[in-house]
Amino acid sequence: PTVRYQSTSDNAKIKAPPMVYIQGEEMTHYATQLLLQQWIVPHFDLSAWETYDLSCKSRDDTNDQVLKDAVDAGKRIGAIFKEPTITPSAIQVQEMGLKKAWGSPNGAMRKGWNGITISRDTIHIEGIQMGYKDQVLFERHAVGGEYGAGWNEVGQGTLLTTYIPDDGSAPFVVDKRDLTDKHNVCVVYHNPYDNVRELAHIFFKRCLEHKVTPYIVTKKTVFKWQEGFWRTMKQVFDDQYKDQFLKAGLLDRSGGDLTHLISDAATMQLIRWTDGGFGMAAHNYDGDMLTDQIAQVHRSPGFITSNLVGKSDDGTLIKEFEASHGTVTDLWNDHLAGKETSLNPLGLVEALMGAMSHAANLQLEKKPNDKSTVQMHAFVENFVDTLRTSIHNTFRYGQGTRDMCGPTGFTTEDFIAKVAWRLNRYLDAQQLKEAEKEKAPQLAESDLEVPKSKMLEYDQTAILKLFSKYDKTGDGKIDFKEFSAMLVKMGVAPKKQ
Amino acid sequence: PTVRYQSTSDNAKIKAPPMVYIQGEEMTHYATQLLLQQWIVPHFDLSAWETYDLSCKSRDDTNDQVLKDAVDAGKRIGAIFKEPTITPSAIQVQEMGLKKAWGSPNGAMRKGWNGITISRDTIHIEGIQMGYKDQVLFERHAVGGEYGAGWNEVGQGTLLTTYIPDDGSAPFVVDKRDLTDKHNVCVVYHNPYDNVRELAHIFFKRCLEHKVTPYIVTKKTVFKWQEGFWRTMKQVFDDQYKDQFLKAGLLDRSGGDLTHLISDAATMQLIRWTDGGFGMAAHNYDGDMLTDQIAQVHRSPGFITSNLVGKSDDGTLIKEFEASHGTVTDLWNDHLAGKETSLNPLGLVEALMGAMSHAANLQLEKKPNDKSTVQMHAFVENFVDTLRTSIHNTFRYGQGTRDMCGPTGFTTEDFIAKVAWRLNRYLDAQQLKEAEKEKAPQLAESDLEVPKSKMLEYDQTAILKLFSKYDKTGDGKIDFKEFSAMLVKMGVAPKKQ
Repeated sequence: PTVRYQSTSDNAKIKAPPMVYIQGEEMTHYATQLLLQQWIVPHFDLSAWETYDLSCKSRDDTNDQVLKDAVDAGKRIGAIFKEPTITPSAIQVQEMGLKKAWGSPNGAMRKGWNGITISRDTIHIEGIQMGYKDQVLFERHAVGGEYGAGWNEVGQGTLLTTYIPDDGSAPFVVDKRDLTDKHNVCVVYHNPYDNVRELAHIFFKRCLEHKVTPYIVTKKTVFKWQEGFWRTMKQVFDDQYKDQFLKAGLLDRSGGDLTHLISDAATMQLIRWTDGGFGMAAHNYDGDMLTDQIAQVHRSPGFITSNLVGKSDDGTLIKEFEASHGTVTDLWNDHLAGKETSLNPLGLVEALMGAMSHAANLQLEKKPNDKSTVQMHAFVENFVDTLRTSIHNTFRYGQGTRDMCGPTGFTTEDFIAKVAWRLNRYLDAQQLKEAEKEKAPQLAESDLEVPKSKMLEYDQTAILKLFSKYDKTGDGKIDFKEFSAMLVKMGVAPKKQ
Repeated sequence: PTVRYQSTSDNAKIKAPPMVYIQGEEMTHYATQLLLQQWIVPHFDLSAWETYDLSCKSRDDTNDQVLKDAVDAGKRIGAIFKEPTITPSAIQVQEMGLKKAWGSPNGAMRKGWNGITISRDTIHIEGIQMGYKDQVLFERHAVGGEYGAGWNEVGQGTLLTTYIPDDGSAPFVVDKRDLTDKHNVCVVYHNPYDNVRELAHIFFKRCLEHKVTPYIVTKKTVFKWQEGFWRTMKQVFDDQYKDQFLKAGLLDRSGGDLTHLISDAATMQLIRWTDGGFGMAAHNYDGDMLTDQIAQVHRSPGFITSNLVGKSDDGTLIKEFEASHGTVTDLWNDHLAGKETSLNPLGLVEALMGAMSHAANLQLEKKPNDKSTVQMHAFVENFVDTLRTSIHNTFRYGQGTRDMCGPTGFTTEDFIAKVAWRLNRYLDAQQLKEAEKEKAPQLAESDLEVPKSKMLEYDQTAILKLFSKYDKTGDGKIDFKEFSAMLVKMGVAPKKQ
């Protein structure tokens, strides 16, 4: 059952291009509804959006027909925004009175949309230092590996694996092993490699666009069968991308060529390379492990994207955008209890902006010469840029959520309202350029560990300037070396008696 | 060909218990020789050690008979210290003129010694802050997983895996899958689970001994076959360890029970839990990835152990101890070129001390009532404690290697000599207690970013005291809040005009 979202009668609004909007539940659903109302609805006619409710109750009520419909719609439309959903545990099945424990929708989506890669990139706020200084990109092969393994728990015996070719040639034994333990599990899986070529193109194009150095991560030194993944990536790179990367100077840090990293070494480099400015492509399970590590190094799963890229039958890319975090149950419980919450919606909004951009791109690909399509595309692009600037500036001016701005930060509702105010101001004035230059307000009290009364005496800007002067490493902290140098230079270092 | 090491005529020395000493090459071999001569030989008769040379040349000369002999000796003796070795690449085969590319000796060792677990623990220097504040332990299942997989690269067709039981019961199909891609790799492996029970005992005993909270890491939420690993661990825990852990308060942080962590969540906790004080047990590949991450969070592979624990036919534990790093080729090249080097031998020495302790334990297990064995065991224990204190104090007093103490740190040779001097002093005086109280010298020049000439004017200790006063979070850094408070309190904050 498809529900049309928020049709509107205001003809002045731009008609947003078709997009699938998958609704989830709890805190992230609440926040998304709020920000859609305040940020999107005032500027767009959303009647071309198709909304599917993947809450547990809706899946239960429809015997999961709604998931099938959502996947079909995604295939047809090609641009999907998904809120976090709940995959119910046995306890939740009881609590919610569900017919069964509906599984994660991910499998159906990856299959239905011919998943090639799950792209996961760090999210940055201009002017605020995160875990990685510059962008980190990741392509995780969306298929293959142990996720689709066959297995059994067996005792002593022999395990025989045979391959029977479709072309009628002779079958042959892939593996024959004696199991000598009394308790074994045996595991069989395959990696389908046909779409690795497409994954390579997606990866290298993105690395060029974001100006980062590409690395291919496998365990092929020991898991010899992974050589094929590297071979295909290297071939595509050498044939079509190497020159561009060389020209852009993006291979300077990797010895002038596409470089392979062993997966366990990659876990180490992810901690060392906090300057960012690199991308990695990996198999499915390695990608699962490594992208969660990236999220944590960068700050939390709130600051990394998760976009499934697949392919429709006509060759256009299907892209599904979602936040990397869950439904944030603890804040939802606080909200239901009438307490203040402060949800950082950055991951949600980056997903929403990504889906809206892709939806506009798909229309432009279809009608590159249609005037109103070109106008719509330009409007969406400008809107997304302006919205991102509004959000970033709100964070930078100390009006962000409490995870970033400390206990004096804004609530969920106040943050969304403040961004809406700023967005409208920027859009109204069509003065994006000016907006970027908006002067930062004076430092808030919370930035100084000095009583309010005293604070007024001092020149905060001068203190900040002094701090920057002695924070030579620029990490927002002064270490003992910097401290000693500072005391000496300020003439207040204690002298020997 | 077994070579007896350094037999000696000095009867005053304690006879070291039998141990297998596996020699490698390059910088780590050079440093080990040096520290053996200066730290061990003056105090022990090493005639019961058996030495095997696993350098490429030696393996080549003996057609790898030396590896077989080393494995046999390890099986017989049960305590093995191994220097880093080189697994030659195709280029090195040519350069060294080898008959073939001799593979890693690890496989033969794990098989020959019935490998159960590879224990990898963080190494700490008392009084020096590393990545993890307190101990982190890890048990990596030494067998199973994709390391022993059978595989093939195949096209479209069907893959059929059948299990034929040894007990004569009917064979059955484990997995049947259609391969629709033109290019696939199919992979078959098994996890032998018989020794997981032993792994559990080793892990929980070590967690109790080191007072850390145990976690079991798998991907069993998706890779359902891994449930058996968790089930066995949990059963052993509930039956024999839970009460002890509860009494010791070691389950306070994990909800009062043994807790399971999903592998990708573990990559995140390893970054968040920098207080340490926990242990993890995992499958082979997850352990490979996660322990390298731990090494990097803690500082580098120089600060993590790598000990293979197996079992001999009579049930005693075979333990092989090695450093986690390689032969340190770059420093070896510097050394050969006559340049100064500064190799931190901590990983090597922890391995050596571990092997010597285990060798002594094995003798005591055999002859618990033999007076001279009891004496030898006590001597080794005290020696190892004293050596460790000597090394740690040398680091703490700014006389460590340059990776820890900066450019004014000691060379490889000077560090080993300084530790020898301190070790002899401590042992001679039998005054370990006093030694621990040895007063730290004044701060080194490298700790202050002030010219040497100027430094003399100032009271470094007072500066350090001031720094500690304003570093309220105690993280060795002063942030902007602390900085502002400090300027105000010191009366040097710029006032408004």
